[in-house]
Amino acid sequence: MLINGQRWRSVWPVSEHTGVGIIDQTRLPHELVTVTLGSSDAVRDAIANMLVRGAPLIGAVAAYGMALAARENASDQYLEERYRFLDSSRPTAVNLRWALDRMMACLRPLPQAQRLSAACALADEIANEDAVLCAAIGEHGLALIRKVAADKPAGEPVQILTHCNAGWLATVDYGTATAPIYMAHDEGINVHVWVGETRPRNQGASLTAWELGQHGVAHTLVADNAGGHLMQHGQVDFCLVGSDRTTASGDVCNKIGTYLKALAAHDNQVPFYVALPSSTIDWTMSDGLAEIPIENRSPDELLLMEGVTEQGDVKQVRIAPSRTPGLNPAFDVTPARLVTGLITERGICAASRQGLLALFEQ
Amino acid sequence: MLINGQRWRSVWPVSEHTGVGIIDQTRLPHELVTVTLGSSDAVRDAIANMLVRGAPLIGAVAAYGMALAARENASDQYLEERYRFLDSSRPTAVNLRWALDRMMACLRPLPQAQRLSAACALADEIANEDAVLCAAIGEHGLALIRKVAADKPAGEPVQILTHCNAGWLATVDYGTATAPIYMAHDEGINVHVWVGETRPRNQGASLTAWELGQHGVAHTLVADNAGGHLMQHGQVDFCLVGSDRTTASGDVCNKIGTYLKALAAHDNQVPFYVALPSSTIDWTMSDGLAEIPIENRSPDELLLMEGVTEQGDVKQVRIAPSRTPGLNPAFDVTPARLVTGLITERGICAASRQGLLALFEQ
Repeated sequence: MLINGQRWRSVWPVSEHTGVGIIDQTRLPHELVTVTLGSSDAVRDAIANMLVRGAPLIGAVAAYGMALAARENASDQYLEERYRFLDSSRPTAVNLRWALDRMMACLRPLPQAQRLSAACALADEIANEDAVLCAAIGEHGLALIRKVAADKPAGEPVQILTHCNAGWLATVDYGTATAPIYMAHDEGINVHVWVGETRPRNQGASLTAWELGQHGVAHTLVADNAGGHLMQHGQVDFCLVGSDRTTASGDVCNKIGTYLKALAAHDNQVPFYVALPSSTIDWTMSDGLAEIPIENRSPDELLLMEGVTEQGDVKQVRIAPSRTPGLNPAFDVTPARLVTGLITERGICAASRQGLLALFEQ
Repeated sequence: MLINGQRWRSVWPVSEHTGVGIIDQTRLPHELVTVTLGSSDAVRDAIANMLVRGAPLIGAVAAYGMALAARENASDQYLEERYRFLDSSRPTAVNLRWALDRMMACLRPLPQAQRLSAACALADEIANEDAVLCAAIGEHGLALIRKVAADKPAGEPVQILTHCNAGWLATVDYGTATAPIYMAHDEGINVHVWVGETRPRNQGASLTAWELGQHGVAHTLVADNAGGHLMQHGQVDFCLVGSDRTTASGDVCNKIGTYLKALAAHDNQVPFYVALPSSTIDWTMSDGLAEIPIENRSPDELLLMEGVTEQGDVKQVRIAPSRTPGLNPAFDVTPARLVTGLITERGICAASRQGLLALFEQ
């Protein structure tokens, strides 16, 4: 998508796959900083420290991490060790394991001498596939937006509320939840996005607002607390969020606070859609609330806030008393009963086993 | 309540009512700064600039402002002018007008020579009455906490989730939602409070966490987004919040985000209680959502964040891209159907006209 008028992706191979380029997303929106990761160690650090985040992007970067590992040492033992090492960088993202499994399934049968080039090619393929997948999600979601737009009085925008960043920064390109929005915007449909700031890491304020702004899509930042109020007052046509993991029964594990928005949507008859690539579907799970492990991250993410001062310096400030304890669950589970539909690369389906099976026969 | 082991109120007369002492709440939680307001001008500034906030506290401080006015000049003309002047300090606080009206009703019939001593006595009375009211709310809520505590396995705390600051800093003493919590703590009941940070002004993180910490009540700060997740996982015994305005039908207008917590409580069969002095009941309104005007405050409250740097300086940082537009509704309305009970100074009642009338015959 566009940054300052230029086409970008969120990850790219560097110098014949001796490194992988990323945007350091912890520096956004105040600074646009790119980093070249030159080793599998650096890839793990970048994922663990959230320089890259978003399940699809994590998967693609991890795939490049395995390619770097194959350059470091293509032995079975080393690659198996790196597989576990990279897999341990984030606990919840299902694409991470999926991408690593795919890399290993390709590499294990090959002679060591062929592993590096195969790994580079497959990492590229995984990244490209993700962009194609997101474009397909965009097409299916676009049909939905066109329908809502057609029913709107002239001049009134289609009002979409999103949470966190399921944008192109979370994927390789287009985004999941944002893909339909970008496509609608690009074809001239009047869309306006309510961006929830997404405490505690502020991905809405710092990433979604930034990428929508760079691409020229109308948007307004609101506190996460404001979503219900907007829906009560008819200011939201539908909600559109991403998913970090989707159970076979249609439960959606996504950024903490998603569940609250889904409750408000349900209470106000506002459709609640989830955009997801099928790679986030975990066919082994059927009860998201009971089965999906939720990562508790450092309370410092809540207690310390980063921003830019009037002087232009990026600073961290503590917003609570110095010894206040905090708890920081990173995700919550939205039960399928609150989800109007799942927008996948193969089309839109009901959030249910039946719905998913109709699109994705196992 | 306690600060560093000492008993405090949030407002107190100084040197035989030549001044009124307050805590500068804009400096909390990073600094405890007290200010003596020595004139009615200073009182108006303190209210307008939110050195004091919370409807009950604003009322008490304004009453002391009228006492200072009576010291400055006890003439009819001056007092009427000061009444209008103080009344204009905050547009929405109901208790401000109520306290000023009460002061004027007392002073107008008196000869000028008696006005100062009468004004000082009545300001003290208004402040004391608020403390007594909050203590009564505390007693009724305490009975509820005792009941929950009795059903808990030994060693497990009563888990209460609150939002914003309905604490003693918002009143003269005890607070509204916090009064039952302090009383339970003081009688040795094991309570633990989940404090929602309360974006965008962070009253939970900066005031509620601070006052609970100073009084020694166990608590944990969470993002507003985390409330639903905690309830889904059985971590909340009940919710307890305040109210800025309560309709005759039991709809509750409170800090933005309250509605989302109430939805989550309802979805997880977690009781949702609202603590309120009857002065917040608006008997003229029956449909909170349609009738209560919601103040949209400056988007800067959302876009700029204040905290303390590692070096100990209090700084403001911008968390979003520099031209991001924001919308900042300050309150939302929780429909009565989501409220388990209203805890008032006269007892606990259903959130309904019938429930309220049973306690407060008009």
